Order: sequence, then C-alpha cells, then structure tokens
Amino acid sequence: MKSLIYLGPGKCVWQDKEKPSIQAPTDVVVKISRTTICGTDLHILKGDVPSVEPGRILGHEGVGSIVEKGEAVGNFAVGDRVLISCITSCGRCPHCRRQMFSHCERGGWILGNRIDGTQAEYVRIPCADTSLYHAPNGVDEDALTMLSDMLPTGFECGVLSGGVNPGDTLAIVGAGPVGLAALISARLYSPSMIVTVDMDEHRLTTSKELGAKHAINSRSENAADAVLRLTGGVGVDVAIEAVGVPDTFDTCQQIVAPGGRIANIGVHGKPVTLRLEKLWDRNVTITTRLVDTVSIPMLLKAMMSGAIDPTRAISHRLHLSEMLKAYETFGHAAREGALKVVLSNG
Amino acid sequence: MKSLIYLGPGKCVWQDKEKPSIQAPTDVVVKISRTTICGTDLHILKGDVPSVEPGRILGHEGVGSIVEKGEAVGNFAVGDRVLISCITSCGRCPHCRRQMFSHCERGGWILGNRIDGTQAEYVRIPCADTSLYHAPNGVDEDALTMLSDMLPTGFECGVLSGGVNPGDTLAIVGAGPVGLAALISARLYSPSMIVTVDMDEHRLTTSKELGAKHAINSRSENAADAVLRLTGGVGVDVAIEAVGVPDTFDTCQQIVAPGGRIANIGVHGKPVTLRLEKLWDRNVTITTRLVDTVSIPMLLKAMMSGAIDPTRAISHRLHLSEMLKAYETFGHAAREGALKVVLSNG
Amino acid sequence: MKSLIYLGPGKCVWQDKEKPSIQAPTDVVVKISRTTICGTDLHILKGDVPSVEPGRILGHEGVGSIVEKGEAVGNFAVGDRVLISCITSCGRCPHCRRQMFSHCERGGWILGNRIDGTQAEYVRIPCADTSLYHAPNGVDEDALTMLSDMLPTGFECGVLSGGVNPGDTLAIVGAGPVGLAALISARLYSPSMIVTVDMDEHRLTTSKELGAKHAINSRSENAADAVLRLTGGVGVDVAIEAVGVPDTFDTCQQIVAPGGRIANIGVHGKPVTLRLEKLWDRNVTITTRLVDTVSIPMLLKAMMSGAIDPTRAISHRLHLSEMLKAYETFGHAAREGALKVVLSNG
Amino acid sequence: MKSLIYLGPGKCVWQDKEKPSIQAPTDVVVKISRTTICGTDLHILKGDVPSVEPGRILGHEGVGSIVEKGEAVGNFAVGDRVLISCITSCGRCPHCRRQMFSHCERGGWILGNRIDGTQAEYVRIPCADTSLYHAPNGVDEDALTMLSDMLPTGFECGVLSGGVNPGDTLAIVGAGPVGLAALISARLYSPSMIVTVDMDEHRLTTSKELGAKHAINSRSENAADAVLRLTGGVGVDVAIEAVGVPDTFDTCQQIVAPGGRIANIGVHGKPVTLRLEKLWDRNVTITTRLVDTVSIPMLLKAMMSGAIDPTRAISHRLHLSEMLKAYETFGHAAREGALKVVLSNG
Repeated sequence: MKSLIYLGPGKCVWQDKEKPSIQAPTDVVVKISRTTICGTDLHILKGDVPSVEPGRILGHEGVGSIVEKGEAVGNFAVGDRVLISCITSCGRCPHCRRQMFSHCERGGWILGNRIDGTQAEYVRIPCADTSLYHAPNGVDEDALTMLSDMLPTGFECGVLSGGVNPGDTLAIVGAGPVGLAALISARLYSPSMIVTVDMDEHRLTTSKELGAKHAINSRSENAADAVLRLTGGVGVDVAIEAVGVPDTFDTCQQIVAPGGRIANIGVHGKPVTLRLEKLWDRNVTITTRLVDTVSIPMLLKAMMSGAIDPTRAISHRLHLSEMLKAYETFGHAAREGALKVVLSNG
Repeated sequence: MKSLIYLGPGKCVWQDKEKPSIQAPTDVVVKISRTTICGTDLHILKGDVPSVEPGRILGHEGVGSIVEKGEAVGNFAVGDRVLISCITSCGRCPHCRRQMFSHCERGGWILGNRIDGTQAEYVRIPCADTSLYHAPNGVDEDALTMLSDMLPTGFECGVLSGGVNPGDTLAIVGAGPVGLAALISARLYSPSMIVTVDMDEHRLTTSKELGAKHAINSRSENAADAVLRLTGGVGVDVAIEAVGVPDTFDTCQQIVAPGGRIANIGVHGKPVTLRLEKLWDRNVTITTRLVDTVSIPMLLKAMMSGAIDPTRAISHRLHLSEMLKAYETFGHAAREGALKVVLSNG
Repeated sequence: MKSLIYLGPGKCVWQDKEKPSIQAPTDVVVKISRTTICGTDLHILKGDVPSVEPGRILGHEGVGSIVEKGEAVGNFAVGDRVLISCITSCGRCPHCRRQMFSHCERGGWILGNRIDGTQAEYVRIPCADTSLYHAPNGVDEDALTMLSDMLPTGFECGVLSGGVNPGDTLAIVGAGPVGLAALISARLYSPSMIVTVDMDEHRLTTSKELGAKHAINSRSENAADAVLRLTGGVGVDVAIEAVGVPDTFDTCQQIVAPGGRIANIGVHGKPVTLRLEKLWDRNVTITTRLVDTVSIPMLLKAMMSGAIDPTRAISHRLHLSEMLKAYETFGHAAREGALKVVLSNG
Repeated sequence: MKSLIYLGPGKCVWQDKEKPSIQAPTDVVVKISRTTICGTDLHILKGDVPSVEPGRILGHEGVGSIVEKGEAVGNFAVGDRVLISCITSCGRCPHCRRQMFSHCERGGWILGNRIDGTQAEYVRIPCADTSLYHAPNGVDEDALTMLSDMLPTGFECGVLSGGVNPGDTLAIVGAGPVGLAALISARLYSPSMIVTVDMDEHRLTTSKELGAKHAINSRSENAADAVLRLTGGVGVDVAIEAVGVPDTFDTCQQIVAPGGRIANIGVHGKPVTLRLEKLWDRNVTITTRLVDTVSIPMLLKAMMSGAIDPTRAISHRLHLSEMLKAYETFGHAAREGALKVVLSNG
C-alpha cells in the first residue's frame, strides 16, 4: 500500500509499504478514506520529535472503514465506518479510568509516532473499542476528520480547561487550525466577546467569519495593549494560547483579568517566564493539556445538530495520492492561505 | 491609644496615636483583644510594599469587641465579640458579588496597608457587616485569631485552589505558618500522604506533629528527588508553594504528577521560569490567589467541631504592649523557633 | 401616584396611592418606565399567596430611573436607569454571602408581596446596592424588563440547576413565558436537541421559532411516549418542569435518561408522587429552586452581545395606565395568545 | 465446588456446583478467600428480584486470587490477589466511558444476579481488567471485602452525591451497614456534625463509636423534630436516606435545610410522596444512584493511609462453609446484633 514514510529530519517519501495486519485481538485495520496533516507532523519532519524513528508512517487523524478486526473487538464490525481518535486509549489503565486518555499506559499519542499512522491507505488501530468512534449516518467525512484531533484539542485544551462560560470575554492568541477550533467550539458556550490575535491576515479574516468580534494583527499593533483597550483595561476572562512560543504566552499573562484563566494549547519547545510577581495575587489559573479526546462523543452530537461546523477550518482538499503536495501546501500555510488540508480516497 | 506605627523602611515604633472613630455609617470601631504579626508585616517593614505610607498602623489580623458602630451596620451591636477578616469586603461590587472579596473595589487588603490596622488598642473596620464575623460562644480567642488570615490563606490559596481530595498525595513546600495552615486545613479532605519541605528543622518537626507523613529538609537533600522517590516516581497530585521564591516554585514544577495541580500561596517578588517545554502535555493546573476569606464561616464550624486546631501554629504568646518584642521574635523565626506570635490585651 | 392595588381574592384596582419615600439609608425610589405581570401575580389575585395582604401594590419586575436615594447607597445615583431584580438581597446575611439571594434574611421575594411592588408609577427598593443593576447604554428596555424575573428564573432554576451542557438532549415541559425563558437561555449551552411540551398550540409554535426541534402537544399525544420515541427510548439528559402540577412533573420522571437531571421551576400547590421504585438506581438528580437572580450580570452581557433575545417572549405592549387591560390579557393567555405583557410609561 | 444456590423464593442451599471456567478472553476465575452477604441478597431470597433465576449462585462481594485468566486480560496475572467490584464494567460502552459503570451495557450489577456470584469457592469474573482491583500488599482482607460494595455504595450514593463538604451538618437516616459506610466515608470530608437515625439501639451505639455526634432512636422520638432541634430549626446540609421506605425518605424531606441535598441510597419498592408544595422554593437537590464503584481506587488509598477503617462495620466472622449460618445471622440482624458478616476460606 502507499504511505507517507518519514526518513529522518527533512525527508519523507510517498511509497509502498506492507499493508498492516492484526497483531493483537483488540486491533482493527482501517482502510483510510480521509486523513489530514497536523502541525505536529511538520515538527516531526524537522526532527523535533525524537520518539519518531525513520521508517515510520506519519499521521494521527483520519476516517475510514474497518476491513479486518481482532476477535476481542466488541464495539465494531468489518465494514463499519469509523473516526480514528488521535489518542489511543486502552480503557483499563488508571489514567484511562479517570478519563485522562492522553496519558494511557498502553496508548496515548502513538499513531504516526511510536507506531505507523494514518497517512496511508490502511492503518492498524490498537485498542480499537476505546480508540474509534462510529461515523454517524450521513455525516460529512471531511468535517468528521476534524474530530480526530483538531476540534477536541481546541475544545478540551482551550475551551474546557479555560472554563469558558456564557457571557465571558475570550482571547485566542493564534488563529491557526487549532486556534480556530477553539473559536468554533468556544461558541458552544456563548461567550460575549471573542478576540483573536495572529500575524496572518488571512487567518484573522477567517476568524472573524467564524465569529470573532475583533481580530488583532500583532505585526501591526501590540496585542496586549489592544486586548486591554477592548476590555476597558480589565483584561479577558479566558486567554487561550494556541501558538507555543514565549511571546504569545506572555501576551496571555498580560491580558488575563483578575480571576481569569490562561489555557495553554501550544506545543512549547522552550521555557517561558511566568510573571508571578504580578500574578501571585491575581487569582488566575493556568492550565496545560495534551488532548484526551474525551469530548469526541459530545462534539459529534454538536456537529450533527448543526451547532458547530468544522469544515470552515478546511482550506484545501486533495486526493490521498497527492500527499506530498499536501505537505507542501500545509508547510507553507501563510503563502498558500492554508488551514487544514483534507486528503481523501474514495 | 498605643499602636505599632510604621515610620519608613526598617523603622517602627509602639506609641500613642489618636483612637479611631466612625467615619462612615457602615464602620465600626473594635477594641482589640488579640492580634498577631504576618510575614507581610515584615515585608512592609523592609520597605517592600510601597502602598504603605509612613505613619500607618500595621496589622490586619485580630479579634476584639465592638465599642462603637455606624448607623447602617445591621449584623453587629456594640459589645459583640468579633473576628476581623484581613480582607475588607463591601459585599456589593461585582467582585464581591462573585465571592472574590480579595479584589473588592472598596476594600480588599487595606487594613495595615492603605488604612490603619489592628496592631493597636483600637481599630476602625469599614464595611463592618461584610468584613467581620461573630466570635462563637466559648471560642478560644487565640485560635480564633488564626482565622483572620493564616488559616483561610492556607486553605483557600493552597487547599481549595489545589483541589485537595480524599486519597490525594500532597506536598507542601514551605512549612512556615501559612504552610502549616495549609497542612492543618488540607486534612479536612483526608489526603493519603502529606510531605512537607523546608530548611528549618523545627518547622519540619512541627509539621510531622500536625500530620505530615514525611518531612524533607531541603538543606540536606534534593527536595524534588525526595518527593519523587516517595511517590514511586509519579509525583504528587497537589503541590502547594508556600514560600514565594523561584527555587521553591521550581520544586513544585518538578514534583507535580500528570493531571496534578500547583497551588501558589507565596508572595513573589520576582518572575519564575515556567518549564512549559516539559509541562505543556502534562495536564497540570497552576493557580495563584490572594485570600478572599470566603471560607471563614466554614473554618469557624470546623474549628468549633474540633476538626481543626489552629493553635498548633502558635509558638509565642505576649501582651499587646510587648509588640516590639513580638516583632523581634517573629522577625528571627528560625533562631526563636517562632511560628505565630499572639498578642493579647484583656 | 397610580398603582395596581390588591384588595383581596379576585379583586384589584388601578388607583391612587401615596408615592413611596426613603425609609432606610439603603433605599432608593425608582420611577417605573417598564413593568410586567408574572404568573405569580395571578396566583396572588386568586388568593393563593397568604403573605400578600389587601392594600398591597403588586408586581416584582421592572425598569426605571432613580429619583431619590438613601445616604448609604453607593452604587447608584439619582437619574441612573436601573433594572429591578425580583429578589431583594441584603448582601450581608449568610444566605447572601453564599449567593443564595432567594433566601436572604432581610429580602428574598418581598416586592409586591410583603412590601409594595412595581406595578405603579414609583416603587421603593430596599437594599438598593445589591438589588438593582445598571441598565446598559442603548439597551432595549422591553428586553431588559425580562431580566427582572422571567429570564433568570428559566435560566437558574431550569438551565443551571439542570446542568445543561453542549450536546445534551433537553425537554422543557411547559412553554409559557418561563419555559420559553429556559429555552432561550438553554441555547447559551448549545444542547443538541430541545423538545417542548405544552397544550397550547400558539406557545408550541413560538417555541419552535425560538429553537425547539420538536414541539409536542400533550392534548393530542402522550408526551412521555413522544419524548422517548424522539430519543430512541433513552430519554433526555435534562427535563425542565415549567408548569407546577403533578402530571407534568410525572412526565419529567418518565422521560429522564439514566444519569439525567430533572430541574423543577414550577410553583407547586400539591405534593407529587416520586417513583423512587423506578428511579432509585437510575442515577438521576432532581432540583428545586426559587430564583436567586445571581445570573443577571451574565444575562445582561449575553443579551448585549446578541446571544439571547428575550423580546421573543413578549406578546403585548401596553401603556402603564392600561394595567387592568394587561391583567385581562395575561389572565386569558390561551385566548389572547399572550406571553409577556410589557407596560411602559415614558 | 461448594456454593450458595438460590432455589426460588425462601429457598437456598449450600451445595456442589461445577467450578466455573473461562468463557471469554476477558474473563478470569477467582478462588474466593473472602465474601460477605448484602441486604440485596436477602431481597433476592424473598423473591423480590425477578432477574435472579433459580439455580443462581448468589453474592456480589469478595476478595480472592486469580487461578485462571483469559488471553485478553492485561492487568492481572494468575496468582494475583484481587478485590471484586460488585459492578462489572466493560470499560468501552458509552456509559463506562462517562464513568457510569452501574449502567454498563455489558455489565452493571450482574454477579449473583444474572450470572453466578461470589458466595462460592470460585467465581468467574467477566471484563476482569475493568472489574477487579489489585489487593494492596499487607491489606487486611476482611477490610478489603468491604470495598466490593458497602463502602463505595455509602460513599458514592450518599457522600459524593450528597456533596458533603467540610463544616456541613449531615443526617444519616438508617444506620445499617450502608448507612455506617456513609458515616465512615463522610468523615473523609470533615462534616461538623453527623446525626444518625435508626430504630436499632445497637446500630445507633455503633454509629456513635464511629463518629456520629448524635444518634436518634426513631422509635422513641420523632426523628425530624429531633434533627430540627439539633440544628436550631434550620435542618441539615445533607440528608442521606439509607433505608428505602417512604417514611425514612419523608424524614429526609422534613430535615433538609434550604440549599441542602437529599442523597438516596435506599432500594425502594414503592413510590414516595415528594412534598413539592413545600420544597419547590427551598433550593434542594435530590439524588438517586446505583453504585458505580468508581471510587474504589480512592477508597483503597484512604484505607491504606488509615483515614478510614471499614472493619468497624463487621460484626461476625465465619468460615465460608458456614454460609447458611451466616445468612441466618445476617437475616436476623437486630436479634443477632449483626452488621456485616465476613466469610473466609484460607
């Protein structure tokens, strides 16, 4: 089968590799009908993620149909159309039993990392009963693909951890796919004002189309000053960090109101400076989180009811065989006006 | 009346000042029967708190009886014995209405800061109806004095914000009065293991008497290593920072388990380094808080039922007129084996 | 001034009574610009509410401007336009300090009950600082009037107590003004499906216009059967009772899913049968609540941001002097197609 | 092997039945070292539980060691000593994924009900990975047996659902084993006062030894009057119903304070009268729950740390072969002074 294989820093190919097969009675093999590329995949390609070894098929997002199943799989049958969670969960370790699937002792983020992933014609999914979800009848599969990772990440790490409530003011620093996912899903809780911050005018424009009241280009003005001005000097109830660099985290510290929350989504490669000398008496909460994907069942319901439409974060649609072109597009997001690139196969 | 008057960095005197009187219909005047000294008072004396001007009577903790009341005061009568909250709350601004009294628009921490405080024979208390509590019949007034600030600070900023639950493992970094208050009040939630960290052997010994299972002297061993060893390498569910310097905050970052909480109580004068490159995917929560004293009614009930005994944090008892000696003792806590010093007058 | 005076069961008049004046330093006098009639007012007229004595001016909802203020009032000035909460809150009793204003020791529901109310040209409001809210600039005063009682009642007693979450299924049994308020405000949390139940076709139609997916006329079909059918036999996550009779409460018991919540809003005059033999192992929660109006600040923000539009629950607009006609209309709601009737004066 | 076999209403025998064997790859077989009898077993014997067919081995509590395991079992090995949860949980159905194991689509309460149970020398446990817990080293197995059902039932259905908090007042109506379990585990949250109500003086005495401040014999005085008197007429913050008849539920309704909670544990065979005409405006919450046993990991930690000691609820210890005598003793609890009867085998 064809697959996107990582060969080491800066190198990947779209080439044949043996089709996966059942290794444990809880496995299934899924024929991929949709997959997509995550910012994390770009980090892997740069060589930033040492757990990924050369030879690995990348990708941790996707939709498809089951073509083979282990004998202990009880929730799914061959032929079922399924959504693949980016987080593999065994359902029986202490972390899974407390709903923190991200730290599953047998799973967590392993697809396209420690085992072969979804950017291929087929993928083996371990712990299938607790790592897959049935595709609802009539669902738009492009939209569904956004529920593997992007939407639960924005929602759980940003919106849930940030405790967005009706009437709240909300700033989202970083309007890439995950920041937009936070925006789309934050609206489930009806905040009174959403402000986005980014340096890319296209993303800011998209954020306004998706419901941001104000969009601040941090190239042209000081983001913290602007947010404070928009909130009468008080700051926001919730600041979501969706970039992963010290500057954007610092912006969040400057704009959080007393009693407010900073929810970090960004993947950080360096420490940041925490201004405790200013924040110690501000009654603020700061959270970090790797997505658990516990919210997928709810997000499915919200999507099917029309409350959220994640297709707004899709900018390009290609055939699965155009994987390298997809990487080229997604890797030059600003130039290409790229958000999520969906690859489909049948 | 006699009072402890701040004269500028390094200087204070115990001398006469005019007895306070009612200035607003919501004021009362309290004759002090108990007061005590807070670590913050030492900071003021060093000149670290610019809002305190020379001439100010210090102190924000105390117990006494009402000798005069404004006409709009409805909850209290002359002669009532009362506990003074360190936080003055108007009860009607937006922050008070959401229970965040620390940020009250008319109050907050003003006693012994922006207005004259409790280290005196008399003190004026504004917004009395919402800033005082009735002393229960038969209460030990020494113990009661601990509820002005020490106990609610340890409880709210440490235990509540840290979300201590039955069965949790808990580390308290800093075993001074507020750290011990966190320890005493954490036990209301029955954690399965409490570890304390300090450099002062006397405080560590006290912490063990108060229920710590392990007490680590960070002069003699690496505190983070020790806590990790005691938790099988996992770390603690809750780490409470009760010192206020970068090193102790860093210890907390190193020992928090995935899914855990760091609750900062310490008053920080400098930024700290937040290791987001390690914590971004650890699902941790970090909180800061200035005490709101919303928990005083509960703490009163817990104390009267025998569930907590804050007198264990009192090391010295002096007469009110020995105020300068009390400062001398409390200011050399390690040498004197001092925890809280209670001053009484009748 | 003119006012609607209760004279005993079945009798009320619109006639002159002395204009109210300040009685306590925390009082204000408000000149009414908007008021409305509540279902409770009809109960009073029937003689069902013994705390209301003949001679009482009715009404506990309204908007107006302050014409006189007591000297201890700090949040408001003469000339300020204000929203009157139906619940008077002193802000300093134990119940108020824990946000349960409905059980305030000095207030609670007293307007138009134990003291003269808002269906008049002027009304005295005790505890003004904690019982009034500033009218935002540019607000629609008709809409604002809905925030005195109707909207916070539907929201707090129905939506908040019921714990409506994104993706939930929700049934609202009773589509009168308060049921519609629950519907309007439930949408702040994006449930996936809302079903309404009523016997009045006009109200059901309105509920569909306001976002109900299904509207069941319980005259023409068994409501419980219909809701179970619509939820695949599972029942709803949240059932809101907004009528106040045994039959509608029973419907809620039949349709609540395992793990679900029943939130009672209705004012009940009789006991109901609780089917504990069926519910004991269903993991359900049942709540009752008199509105606290703690949510008014949030609802104001939500309304000003466009997230909710309570004017949809207004069916008739009259001049204040047409009070008796308003009662006639509201008292024959089915015949008149009446929801809320707003009376305005200037 | 020997086992306690239900033969129909009023009849059971202790006789041979074939030793169970693995039926599914997720099964294990446990050799029982401890088991006990639940009030539910008495209900079954009376013929009150139609799902139990003649020929069934009763019992859903126990401790033992694994003697055989299916190939898909990953958390346990042959020889492991384990605690058996009374609730079988598949870990992968929607209810299990939201932690409501009681309503597991493949499990729930099935042991000694729909499949053979633990009152035998051996028992087959389905879904072993998610229905068993490792026995900690050095644990007292008698105490451990109390964690199969009694203690999590008292804790989850009573204490957790009732939201017991430090400082709360708490009434437990019914001081049998489950009521005492609620008492023991409520103390993890340090309520300020616990009152027990029962008609059996022995149980009341035990409850006082376990920490109840007041114990009311409802044969000799009106329980509701007594609780109201002890709480100054206010009522309790939390009322736990641990009997399961209309009278005791009614007591709970009479004694719950405004803003309070009624947590039902009792297994009810009949409807009760809910006094909504009095409770509609009292801001109360009523909960029902079949135990999920989600709290077992926490209770294990609490027990190993010494915070709770469930052996206080054990009145009799017999050998497994004395099963019929155990039923005789437990079935005449008042006469025998019986609480839990532990049966052990090796």
